Amino acid sequence: MRAQNWMIEFRAVSRANMFRLLKTEVSTKSKYQEIVIADVQGFGRAVFLDGLPQSSAKDEFIYHEALIHPALVANKSPKKVYIAGGGEGAVLREILKHNTIEKVVMVDIDEEFINLSREYLYDWHQGTYDHEKVELVHGDARTYLEETEERFDVIIMDLTDPLEDGVSTSLFTTEFFSLAKSRLAEGGVLCMQAETVDITDIAPHVSIVKTLQQCFKNVLPYQTYIPYYGLAWGFVVASDHDIRPRFDAETLTQTLKERDCNDLKFYDSESHQHMFSLPKYLRDAIADPNVGKIVSDEQPLIVEPLAEGEKGNS
Amino acid sequence: MRAQNWMIEFRAVSRANMFRLLKTEVSTKSKYQEIVIADVQGFGRAVFLDGLPQSSAKDEFIYHEALIHPALVANKSPKKVYIAGGGEGAVLREILKHNTIEKVVMVDIDEEFINLSREYLYDWHQGTYDHEKVELVHGDARTYLEETEERFDVIIMDLTDPLEDGVSTSLFTTEFFSLAKSRLAEGGVLCMQAETVDITDIAPHVSIVKTLQQCFKNVLPYQTYIPYYGLAWGFVVASDHDIRPRFDAETLTQTLKERDCNDLKFYDSESHQHMFSLPKYLRDAIADPNVGKIVSDEQPLIVEPLAEGEKGNS
Amino acid sequence: MRAQNWMIEFRAVSRANMFRLLKTEVSTKSKYQEIVIADVQGFGRAVFLDGLPQSSAKDEFIYHEALIHPALVANKSPKKVYIAGGGEGAVLREILKHNTIEKVVMVDIDEEFINLSREYLYDWHQGTYDHEKVELVHGDARTYLEETEERFDVIIMDLTDPLEDGVSTSLFTTEFFSLAKSRLAEGGVLCMQAETVDITDIAPHVSIVKTLQQCFKNVLPYQTYIPYYGLAWGFVVASDHDIRPRFDAETLTQTLKERDCNDLKFYDSESHQHMFSLPKYLRDAIADPNVGKIVSDEQPLIVEPLAEGEKGNS
Amino acid sequence: MRAQNWMIEFRAVSRANMFRLLKTEVSTKSKYQEIVIADVQGFGRAVFLDGLPQSSAKDEFIYHEALIHPALVANKSPKKVYIAGGGEGAVLREILKHNTIEKVVMVDIDEEFINLSREYLYDWHQGTYDHEKVELVHGDARTYLEETEERFDVIIMDLTDPLEDGVSTSLFTTEFFSLAKSRLAEGGVLCMQAETVDITDIAPHVSIVKTLQQCFKNVLPYQTYIPYYGLAWGFVVASDHDIRPRFDAETLTQTLKERDCNDLKFYDSESHQHMFSLPKYLRDAIADPNVGKIVSDEQPLIVEPLAEGEKGNS
Repeated sequence: MRAQNWMIEFRAVSRANMFRLLKTEVSTKSKYQEIVIADVQGFGRAVFLDGLPQSSAKDEFIYHEALIHPALVANKSPKKVYIAGGGEGAVLREILKHNTIEKVVMVDIDEEFINLSREYLYDWHQGTYDHEKVELVHGDARTYLEETEERFDVIIMDLTDPLEDGVSTSLFTTEFFSLAKSRLAEGGVLCMQAETVDITDIAPHVSIVKTLQQCFKNVLPYQTYIPYYGLAWGFVVASDHDIRPRFDAETLTQTLKERDCNDLKFYDSESHQHMFSLPKYLRDAIADPNVGKIVSDEQPLIVEPLAEGEKGNS
Repeated sequence: MRAQNWMIEFRAVSRANMFRLLKTEVSTKSKYQEIVIADVQGFGRAVFLDGLPQSSAKDEFIYHEALIHPALVANKSPKKVYIAGGGEGAVLREILKHNTIEKVVMVDIDEEFINLSREYLYDWHQGTYDHEKVELVHGDARTYLEETEERFDVIIMDLTDPLEDGVSTSLFTTEFFSLAKSRLAEGGVLCMQAETVDITDIAPHVSIVKTLQQCFKNVLPYQTYIPYYGLAWGFVVASDHDIRPRFDAETLTQTLKERDCNDLKFYDSESHQHMFSLPKYLRDAIADPNVGKIVSDEQPLIVEPLAEGEKGNS
Repeated sequence: MRAQNWMIEFRAVSRANMFRLLKTEVSTKSKYQEIVIADVQGFGRAVFLDGLPQSSAKDEFIYHEALIHPALVANKSPKKVYIAGGGEGAVLREILKHNTIEKVVMVDIDEEFINLSREYLYDWHQGTYDHEKVELVHGDARTYLEETEERFDVIIMDLTDPLEDGVSTSLFTTEFFSLAKSRLAEGGVLCMQAETVDITDIAPHVSIVKTLQQCFKNVLPYQTYIPYYGLAWGFVVASDHDIRPRFDAETLTQTLKERDCNDLKFYDSESHQHMFSLPKYLRDAIADPNVGKIVSDEQPLIVEPLAEGEKGNS
Repeated sequence: MRAQNWMIEFRAVSRANMFRLLKTEVSTKSKYQEIVIADVQGFGRAVFLDGLPQSSAKDEFIYHEALIHPALVANKSPKKVYIAGGGEGAVLREILKHNTIEKVVMVDIDEEFINLSREYLYDWHQGTYDHEKVELVHGDARTYLEETEERFDVIIMDLTDPLEDGVSTSLFTTEFFSLAKSRLAEGGVLCMQAETVDITDIAPHVSIVKTLQQCFKNVLPYQTYIPYYGLAWGFVVASDHDIRPRFDAETLTQTLKERDCNDLKFYDSESHQHMFSLPKYLRDAIADPNVGKIVSDEQPLIVEPLAEGEKGNS
């Protein structure tokens, strides 16, 4: 056997994951983050940001369909959508499948990464950055929301993990969730990726759920396994409106049909059941007052904090 | 940073998994397999057989509850149970929670591993190897079934992966499933671990499902994420009887209650929904005639075949 | 800790070496080999060919000075030099330090790699590809020697390892050594990198020494530790002429001085002593008739043969 | 390919080394250090202390012969020898080969490790712990020297690396070297392992040399490649006596012969030349006033300091 190039994700709490890089297409550092785009054994073209796996050609449909379709279905007629983050453009691609959409504003801070996506990740965005309904903004997702007078039917948070020195940390707090809620239209829905639900590392997910519960009347956590992460992954959909009736199997199926969402590879009513029926240990953790914390600007959520020696040189 | 001891599971198809060994308790080779028992970061005491992760103190309840409770619930009144494999004894522990049980026969080929379990894995078996209702046999699970005149309400296959040179390969075939079926009592149910359902490596699971469909009228695949494996894992419950009504939420809850199964940490009606509602891509793979094959003694299922250089010296 | 990109060199026989890639500059496949150029922790800019470490900014001076200066010193007045291989151009850089040099012919098969060296490895070649005394040929080093009518004072073999499917294998044989010898001028000297002398993997080095002994009257193996390889590395200088007197400490020092070779960082008479005084176990291995073999076109030397599964897809 | 057990030595400065463990014999924590004894691919039975490779069956003869024979040869008639450390007992084995020896005092702090050596590392000590000339003390090597009235011909320091929380740190200081010197008999010699001389990590070695130079008139650094470490390794022999004449090739050969040291596998006059002729870059580093520092009890030498997160839980 010869030398092999592996990306090793040393998780602080348990297993490490190794990805074999067959060919590195991009290895650079933008103003905001380290970017690696490579061909990865078993997963095809794939993305790492700040050293963490983001999405792969093989299974990105699972993550992206799981992230956005429940929230869009939860809203009776989503016309205006706001995306915080969303770099690779696959969130755009999925949103535009719903024929009710009139306008999507996507605010991602890292223009350089989006330009690399245009060049190397076509299957993700499929040209939707330039779709007539899309307004693409390179800026801070929190600042934009503070300043906008627009109101949105759905707000989607497709963010990198809240890292100690990362760009997403200020978007996981009570203050941000309250701001986001104030920018929702009547019946509006917020959804987000919400960290792993792996039993060895469950606290960050529970913290996100509990923080959202401070802001929204209805908070529904859900999860599915993401092959590229080697982890069961958590999501949350939240609203002041009672969205549960929208998830009734028949209503859900009918909604997707009416909106011409016919080519989905992951999401349908049975996959919805799979995701929203939580394993008991996860329900128990969420119900446990000793697990997780309320996240605020002052007390942020940090996953995978840097070791002393890594600060300032990563 | 100093030297660290890692068990690296190089998967043939995609990601490799690294487990940090904090302390190796057992590192030996029995007549049948390589055995490592160690304290693993994030997972506590944990077991590797023939180099593959089997179960950990942290999350073995997920695997073992997922494996046995659906089949036991599916049977109206399980009195006699047969276990093929079942080394660590956690399957015994779970079965004996059902107050209908009168006799459990467990046939595991590796006496040395069971003796190590007695010494190092008490939390798994909790002394049930010596329970008055248990008959523990050190022998070949297929031969035992061939020779027995007993009929069982439930047959549970808790086997290691079918490896090229492994002890379990002859228990994943049409011939064995037919034999097992013939040893079931009226209304009998078979269940088994059925390999990963990860999208990068889905064929072995589909093969098991399709092979069981040759033998049983009702074959229900299900899955859940196993943290120690870093993989969504497949299981199957099969019967000639129509077992779906037994899984109705109310019936299931009532059954567990009547049988005094009150202390489960993973399995209940919502976890059941989570497991038996399959992601669409998994249903599509099972429905795809080009994925998987019918497994037979002549055409066995081999996962993770040995590379040329590994034969004869592993 | 976050994800880290490591190049892992799995050696067939013992230790594996891991190199942390801080930034991948080039990851491509030329017509002849896989090429990775990256910034490597501890070593700076560094090169991997066909997955094996070649040279690094931090320590390439050790390898390149060790390879060429003994042979150039061994020749009384080296005017014409032939290089088989020599990709990064550091061999050129070192040869041109000797003020006796009139012409250097370098024949390297991989034009694409040399073009990448021009762009990414300036410190190696320092522009010498285009030096007026240099003739750079993109072709097969064996074929060129067969066809040339030129005679050389020194022939330097700076080759990648003889791999099963590699470009260098036909240059490690009796037939090639005989050809090279026939292209030497009176008093001519051949030198080459000659694989590791690590005690766990000593046979390939011994084979090279024994094969050279078939062709040359004087064969002097020597070695030094190469940090980037994590291995003691072997070299050989060979000639029909008695070259030992040239290595007398005083003569050697005087020769370097006369030739204006004053800025060497590794090679001088004490380093020469260090390299040419061999550890006893290495002398014993070379003297052992059971270690190594005579290499020929029919019975080539292959280090690190491919495993069955790697053939055709590496 | 299946799971494999690897010990990974993450070096702070450059390459990491991976050792494949075929079978772990011992994995425990004594009062003083973590101990792993395993069968390692390519190296046979081998030892790791506090996570760092110590010695292997395949190549321990290189390290141990290199460490002790120069110092014993440097002394005209070594009768009494003191060993600080020396756990595995191979230092004892080598010393007793010299027929001048009358008494060896070995002071090693870790009785538990020595008991494990008795059981698992016979080839190292070959029963010499119980040799009639040997006095084996379980205690602190510095305290013993402070309290003894004995004077020794040779003092040998066979210590683990000076780690932040390690047992050897106080034995690498000016204060300890001065103490050791005061316990030498007329013409006495001290020798020690002195960390790697790898160019990426050369400062600790230079610090040891410079600190010894504060205490002894003659300080001779030397080095050789240790396969198990994947590193060129430094040693030092020091004395107030002029020991160079003892290393004259003829004298050295004669000395070994007179003392019946005829079965050495590594050390003889050519290997001595190899070790004591230093590569130029190493001489330059030792001559450079900006490399290394004088080590004292107040300013200790720490190699591989712990990262913040590792303190208190390793």
